[in-house]
Amino acid sequence: MARLVVIYGMPNDPAAFDRYYFVTHVPIAKKIPGLRNYEVSTGPIATPAGPAPHHLVAILTFDDLPAIANAFASPEGQATAADVRTFATGGVEMFLFDSREI
Amino acid sequence: MARLVVIYGMPNDPAAFDRYYFVTHVPIAKKIPGLRNYEVSTGPIATPAGPAPHHLVAILTFDDLPAIANAFASPEGQATAADVRTFATGGVEMFLFDSREI
Repeated sequence: MARLVVIYGMPNDPAAFDRYYFVTHVPIAKKIPGLRNYEVSTGPIATPAGPAPHHLVAILTFDDLPAIANAFASPEGQATAADVRTFATGGVEMFLFDSREI
Repeated sequence: MARLVVIYGMPNDPAAFDRYYFVTHVPIAKKIPGLRNYEVSTGPIATPAGPAPHHLVAILTFDDLPAIANAFASPEGQATAADVRTFATGGVEMFLFDSREI
């Protein structure tokens, strides 16, 4: 299993971000080939010390890292990446890695 | 479901970090009450632009945010947090949030 963890910084307008994210972005992202599972945070992002300066975390699951590479290279992945640039006004970090339960 | 995402920066000695993490830290962390699942990255952490300046990502799953609060407050959680401070020479970020599949 491989994970793509997407961490969005606090946007200029969190309510507008949420509307756009769930109404427009998610349907685009769900077309990405090889996507096995799509999970998003609900409610605030916290740290052990208090609120995080981040607004939303998404965890996308694929079979393996080559599947993520294929996803990024696909037309659907390119459309998703282009769409992220239109609404991620607070910035975004993405981490991808193979993962296993221990 | 609630997630605790732990992102370790690149340590001074990655091989020593890995030995300590899997031999010593994981057994301590697995005693945390309410921990439902423990997953760690295998291999490098990447970003879409190339290698990340991070070494390891752990995703811990609990039933909900109160369960994470209980976990942090427990003696086992306190021991785990104290242990992290001994080996996370590259820094560590933690994000906790409720999460759902979409």
